[in-house]
Amino acid sequence: MKTITETKIAATHPLGELMQTNRRPSVLGSAELAVVARAESAALAAARHYFEKEGFTEVTVPHITQVTGACENIDTLFELDYFGESGYLVQTGQLYLEALISRLGKVYCIGPSFRAEPDIDERHLTEFTLVEIEFPGDFEQLLAHMENITYAMIHAAASCEALAELGINTGRLKAVKKPFARMTYDEAIKKLQQHGIDISWGDDLKSKHEKLLAGDSPLFITHYPEKIKFFNMRRNGLHVNSCDLILPRSGEAAGAAEREHDHKLLCEKLVNSEMYEKLRKRGKDVKDFKWYLDIVEKYPIQHAGCGIGLNRVMQFILDTDDIRACTPFPMNRESLM
Amino acid sequence: MKTITETKIAATHPLGELMQTNRRPSVLGSAELAVVARAESAALAAARHYFEKEGFTEVTVPHITQVTGACENIDTLFELDYFGESGYLVQTGQLYLEALISRLGKVYCIGPSFRAEPDIDERHLTEFTLVEIEFPGDFEQLLAHMENITYAMIHAAASCEALAELGINTGRLKAVKKPFARMTYDEAIKKLQQHGIDISWGDDLKSKHEKLLAGDSPLFITHYPEKIKFFNMRRNGLHVNSCDLILPRSGEAAGAAEREHDHKLLCEKLVNSEMYEKLRKRGKDVKDFKWYLDIVEKYPIQHAGCGIGLNRVMQFILDTDDIRACTPFPMNRESLM
Repeated sequence: MKTITETKIAATHPLGELMQTNRRPSVLGSAELAVVARAESAALAAARHYFEKEGFTEVTVPHITQVTGACENIDTLFELDYFGESGYLVQTGQLYLEALISRLGKVYCIGPSFRAEPDIDERHLTEFTLVEIEFPGDFEQLLAHMENITYAMIHAAASCEALAELGINTGRLKAVKKPFARMTYDEAIKKLQQHGIDISWGDDLKSKHEKLLAGDSPLFITHYPEKIKFFNMRRNGLHVNSCDLILPRSGEAAGAAEREHDHKLLCEKLVNSEMYEKLRKRGKDVKDFKWYLDIVEKYPIQHAGCGIGLNRVMQFILDTDDIRACTPFPMNRESLM
Repeated sequence: MKTITETKIAATHPLGELMQTNRRPSVLGSAELAVVARAESAALAAARHYFEKEGFTEVTVPHITQVTGACENIDTLFELDYFGESGYLVQTGQLYLEALISRLGKVYCIGPSFRAEPDIDERHLTEFTLVEIEFPGDFEQLLAHMENITYAMIHAAASCEALAELGINTGRLKAVKKPFARMTYDEAIKKLQQHGIDISWGDDLKSKHEKLLAGDSPLFITHYPEKIKFFNMRRNGLHVNSCDLILPRSGEAAGAAEREHDHKLLCEKLVNSEMYEKLRKRGKDVKDFKWYLDIVEKYPIQHAGCGIGLNRVMQFILDTDDIRACTPFPMNRESLM
């Protein structure tokens, strides 16, 4: 049941009819859904043009995996019976891409990322498209790629005339300039505290915090504390060389980091991670990461990468807080079809 | 355990080391695998360039579905617990693409297709990349698109210098010309019978038959009997307006058809199909196809589409009978990682 406020937003936003998943087939032939599909397609094409221009190789990664296909949020893995063994629906192709950079250099994949999220709301989907890259290189090169890819996606979609015809403000998008603003996690915490928000160093940022910090423009928040991030992000004191891209409307739209390529340190970081603690409770251990750890040992190359959530970028493009309006087939508990 | 013949092939083919899945991590950094990845990426890019040039919209289809995500081979569905309901890993995005053509016109998707195939051999994978299109139009337009897409993929990959450097003959590929040869299913049966093969009208063609008919060049086999094809292929007497693309080395590399857009006939064809019989045994019925049937009723547009198996096209490109050598992460029962 929608609240009065939700109903009001849906009624006034040009994509209001799409902000639902309980009667999705009824909107598949609508003009609004066609605009969303065209804008999504334009954004994807822009990312791919960038990858081609920059010499990235597209890789088809596996979509049923062992736990090496999980992101840090182990609790949301979809499990299935893979011939008597546990298989999981992939959440990130990151480690599979990393395995190929020694020979291929810059690589990317675009495909579904799965989360067993039971919530039916404006923020959660059970599958969404992730644009992922890995490459030999450093943190500054990483931020440049993220900025260029996202900038290209935003400006390509902004050129879709149908957006403006539907009444979606594209001026916001055309106003996006490079370089994106930057602040460190430490600066972000201080700024939030100055706003009277009850948050301490070491806490993860919530979506409302991210939106407050970003305001109307893309924002990079860099150098998060090591303990709240994925085990293979490269250590830098108490921090890691990580970066989240925050966009208006959506909050965190991309996560990125330089990867740890010191094999000994990587093994240590894995077994001390919160994710590993959760994995141990599921009967998993270091052996499940053996193939990946072996590759890092064999090819200790400085490298970095990121995952950009297509639907989160589309939230900014389509000017909506509701991710269900941002793709033709938004998937959650009630929208299986 | 490999037979002596298999070992001989593996030893003499430039990609011999990749014709295995039981120790896959060991080849991820190899020069051969990098060539395969680059050729695959080039083929994908060529298909997408064609789609852009022709004005196709890329659609992100769901990858967990109800039975409307199944192809005719219901027995190979991967099932998973989707919040207490049965979900299936998608085998084809076809019906989801079809749902959008009334407004979007030409659409495509490229993504994983899943099959719960327990066999560990040179022909079976549990997931593979499928390039799918749907568009308002007729059978001749369909064959033209299939020919153009496949031609573009083959010639783009043939230009990868690394292929020739590895000792893979690219002359075969550069010799591929349009239009592709064509024969009807009825002609194919007659030709096979003339070769002394024990086959009757109504039998499906086996891989060895397809390879015999194709010889060294791509071949379209059109107008199969209705009863051996997917329920929504458009009826044409006892046949359907269907087309399989046969390639040297791989056999059937693509399936295509004009779709039935007569709602009454479509419903009738569904309930009389062999697939429906299998679905009934699983407790499914017409209601499971309601959203799709409703859309065809609402938008009765002449349309057609095809699904091209990327890895099968790569078999021809890489000149191998072993599909495991044709993608960086070939997935089967033993290669979960």
